Amino acid sequence: VGSNPTLSAILIPGAGTIIKKARQVPLVLAGFGHVGKAFCGLLQEKDELLRKHYGLALKLQAVLKSDGGFISDSGITPKGFPDRPGQNTARSPLWKPGQTLEAVLKTVKPGVLVECTPSNVQTGEPGLGHLRAALRGGWHVVTANKGPLAVDFKGLRDLAQANHLVLKYSAATAAALPTIDVGLYSLAGAEIISIEGILNGTTNYILTRMGEGAEYKEALREAQDQGIAEHNPALDVEGWDTAVKLLLIANSVLGLDLTLQDIKVEGITQITSGLLEKAKQEEKTLKLIGRMTQAPGRWKAEVSPMSVESTHPLFGVSRTNKGITFWTDTMGAVTVTGGKSDPRGAAAALLKDIIHIFCIPNATTSFRL
Amino acid sequence: VGSNPTLSAILIPGAGTIIKKARQVPLVLAGFGHVGKAFCGLLQEKDELLRKHYGLALKLQAVLKSDGGFISDSGITPKGFPDRPGQNTARSPLWKPGQTLEAVLKTVKPGVLVECTPSNVQTGEPGLGHLRAALRGGWHVVTANKGPLAVDFKGLRDLAQANHLVLKYSAATAAALPTIDVGLYSLAGAEIISIEGILNGTTNYILTRMGEGAEYKEALREAQDQGIAEHNPALDVEGWDTAVKLLLIANSVLGLDLTLQDIKVEGITQITSGLLEKAKQEEKTLKLIGRMTQAPGRWKAEVSPMSVESTHPLFGVSRTNKGITFWTDTMGAVTVTGGKSDPRGAAAALLKDIIHIFCIPNATTSFRL
Repeated sequence: VGSNPTLSAILIPGAGTIIKKARQVPLVLAGFGHVGKAFCGLLQEKDELLRKHYGLALKLQAVLKSDGGFISDSGITPKGFPDRPGQNTARSPLWKPGQTLEAVLKTVKPGVLVECTPSNVQTGEPGLGHLRAALRGGWHVVTANKGPLAVDFKGLRDLAQANHLVLKYSAATAAALPTIDVGLYSLAGAEIISIEGILNGTTNYILTRMGEGAEYKEALREAQDQGIAEHNPALDVEGWDTAVKLLLIANSVLGLDLTLQDIKVEGITQITSGLLEKAKQEEKTLKLIGRMTQAPGRWKAEVSPMSVESTHPLFGVSRTNKGITFWTDTMGAVTVTGGKSDPRGAAAALLKDIIHIFCIPNATTSFRL
Repeated sequence: VGSNPTLSAILIPGAGTIIKKARQVPLVLAGFGHVGKAFCGLLQEKDELLRKHYGLALKLQAVLKSDGGFISDSGITPKGFPDRPGQNTARSPLWKPGQTLEAVLKTVKPGVLVECTPSNVQTGEPGLGHLRAALRGGWHVVTANKGPLAVDFKGLRDLAQANHLVLKYSAATAAALPTIDVGLYSLAGAEIISIEGILNGTTNYILTRMGEGAEYKEALREAQDQGIAEHNPALDVEGWDTAVKLLLIANSVLGLDLTLQDIKVEGITQITSGLLEKAKQEEKTLKLIGRMTQAPGRWKAEVSPMSVESTHPLFGVSRTNKGITFWTDTMGAVTVTGGKSDPRGAAAALLKDIIHIFCIPNATTSFRL
């Protein structure tokens, strides 16, 4: 106990159900940054598992960048990309300069759009245009990009529903930490009384280090040096990254139509190591919490540094870890913590969402396809 | 932060999808103890939510006890039962003395059997006979009873698969704590490297109290006085309750066919407060852990008191709380903790399993029925 054992053999979850013929699903990937590349790698790595245990043959037919795309009718494998990062894309025979996502979606039989372009929570672009084109064109969507959902959650949800398509965004709501999964699936039939989440790893790391005595600026610089915080950390430390994740979770799990304007947001920039020391003396700690509570007749959404008692299920969630607690009427408090937030973790969340569009793993019956 | 807010208004999870016509599902309940009664109460309490958000009209057509049953074609409501606990069942007009489950299953249109009879991990009865009769007769099954699954997991799973029926048992694997849900659903596409769980509330309470200085016998007596431990605590303190839960989780999530004989089981009866004090000095603690790890070419299953480091995600799971950690190849460590284990929590887990037989909540599309 205490560490993740590293073992050579990796066995496979699931009921051991043999699926005879895998269903072919065309994929188009928009965005080829860290997450997009990790997703391409995962598709190769998991090909056999996906066929055998989930009955899915995922076929990557196009990968779009801002200046063109790799396209292949027969499916893109790692050989379709330039050998080395930074190498000229034009060296790939699959590269079509100037190719746009919108054009590609019209020529490929609809399947799933995987959206991984950079997040812009002001305009939502370029992801917003991608999601709208996909949902109008009959494509399911899984996305790691918060921007479009922060800007137009309701519009996108309505568009998916009107077209009988699935729009999923686990990767945008804390990557491999299953937040919406637990709230919607594991708590089915329970009523949620309140939600509290530590949803941003960067601020949690800074607060943890401040609890160990570091001052804010020192802890932030340390996080930047380690690649945990971005060069411009404003979205994280001012609470907006937490707010967008809270919006996605609350709208999904509670069926709301919150916009960012509905959330009261306060970051951690005013926190001092002295405040953390004081909390510690009272056997508490300070965490940046995204919280949904109920005021008479409506939900109240807020993000702010809050005092957390030592008996609270999120008390021990420290460093870059994240976690979320759902307080319910019948099931008590259910808390989920952990889950990788690196590009591979985000890619795994995208893959999970694709699996859930087509089948629900079940221990005792064949998966439903 | 820090306590479960008590508020009058309870809002409803889900996407706010309006379902026009609810699907009628006949239910038969076997066992009318604490869990069975809590389940009956929950059916009434959740009737509107089930119709509106999950499209389900659950109709309780029979409740079987060991000496007969309450039967009603038009559905049993609380009025169908005797007014007060302990009151003679014969006072209910719905009471049919000597009625058996097997006979009832043949006369009602198949739906879902809800199994809540007392657990017997030696013989599996009477639940084992109930489950076999139901699965042979075209009934889906949800059960809170560990006995039948401990005795014949493979046989029951095969029987469900052969008849294209769903057999679910969340309530038997830590009640409202979503163990199998997280392993099968939230980790879809990931490969599980190892599993570690604190799966028994009684032993966790005793170990917590011993960590606070109490001796074993004192802590056990205290747990018995508070109704946490049973008069005969052998199944808990000797590790067998944890072993059965580990068996159910591992067989489901990893697709194995473990029997109880495959699990190395050691309880907490040899633990002293001195050992806990020593662990504390090393910033560790002792927990009764059910663990699945991989030896070359096979899985190793064991239950024993283990040393847990302060950085381990289960370190803070104390008193009657439970928790489980899945270590994966792509998603890191995902841990879920909490979830009520009282009769209402178990009943909520039964209800969740019924919902999942018929629909999967989804944030952006209508539920799939």
